[in-house]
Amino acid sequence: MGTSLDGFIARKKDDIAWLTEYPTLGEDHGFNAHMARVDGVIMGRGTYEVINDMQPWYYSKPVVVLSRSLTQADIPSQIADKVEVMNATPEDAMQRLGERGWKAAYVDGGTVIQSFLRAGLIDDMVISRIPVLIGEGIPLFGPLEGDLLLDHVRTRAFPSGMVQSVYRVKR
Amino acid sequence: MGTSLDGFIARKKDDIAWLTEYPTLGEDHGFNAHMARVDGVIMGRGTYEVINDMQPWYYSKPVVVLSRSLTQADIPSQIADKVEVMNATPEDAMQRLGERGWKAAYVDGGTVIQSFLRAGLIDDMVISRIPVLIGEGIPLFGPLEGDLLLDHVRTRAFPSGMVQSVYRVKR
Repeated sequence: MGTSLDGFIARKKDDIAWLTEYPTLGEDHGFNAHMARVDGVIMGRGTYEVINDMQPWYYSKPVVVLSRSLTQADIPSQIADKVEVMNATPEDAMQRLGERGWKAAYVDGGTVIQSFLRAGLIDDMVISRIPVLIGEGIPLFGPLEGDLLLDHVRTRAFPSGMVQSVYRVKR
Repeated sequence: MGTSLDGFIARKKDDIAWLTEYPTLGEDHGFNAHMARVDGVIMGRGTYEVINDMQPWYYSKPVVVLSRSLTQADIPSQIADKVEVMNATPEDAMQRLGERGWKAAYVDGGTVIQSFLRAGLIDDMVISRIPVLIGEGIPLFGPLEGDLLLDHVRTRAFPSGMVQSVYRVKR
């Protein structure tokens, strides 16, 4: 996840220009390597709508949109073979995707990340912090039922000022 | 500032045991070197009360407590020569302390840090992140009038899992 230094993944109303327009000097932050390790992407409606606005469609791997309000008919036909709407809890979604052979998913978006964290379904987190304070917005993290302890795996600072840390959730 | 990975400096009700009891393996996180570079500490009433509960008194350098509700008579006599209550805005406090020869202050505590950030009175930030999500609490950062851009100076990861980043506010 890309976040501001104060922990927001987007401004209110989903604006992420502060993130996408941040000059990263052609750095490889490992996104392609990360995508190569997963079987697909799971996101919520909010993230889907932000991504869908950024033409052309961003992902080559399968994308599952967890939503109670969207239906498959809401997905534009040119990406209908890449995007599946699923009305399911995190547990049910992982169960169904596991039955299809998924071993690892990239979980994207604040609300969905928070619900997967609460369900104990997140193993690893990659947090990339942009050196800007935006003051308010949509937070990466949210309420939990109890503390969640993590192991720090590694941190890399890039010349652009982005600091990327990898954590593993303790079991 | 020590913060949780989700950006809190304390739980609600100022509990910081998750921070103070985190095992840091005898690491030197640079706190003494940091204190040696400043003329004193500026904090708010909430931080003062947390520190005052941790006997013996923690700081050898002068401490200024910015408060509209406390008075000097509220400070226990055994630390009255080390702690000064000041009913002043950040700008006024820095003006008065500058007249006494202060060149650099360590500004501590969420509310005071946020008000100094908004007043443009923070030059450098040292953020030490503990690898734990606590879900809710008192946030390090808060609302701003506009984005605040920072330069990343350096980041160090410690064996304990603490990741410490130094930033400089862009002017």
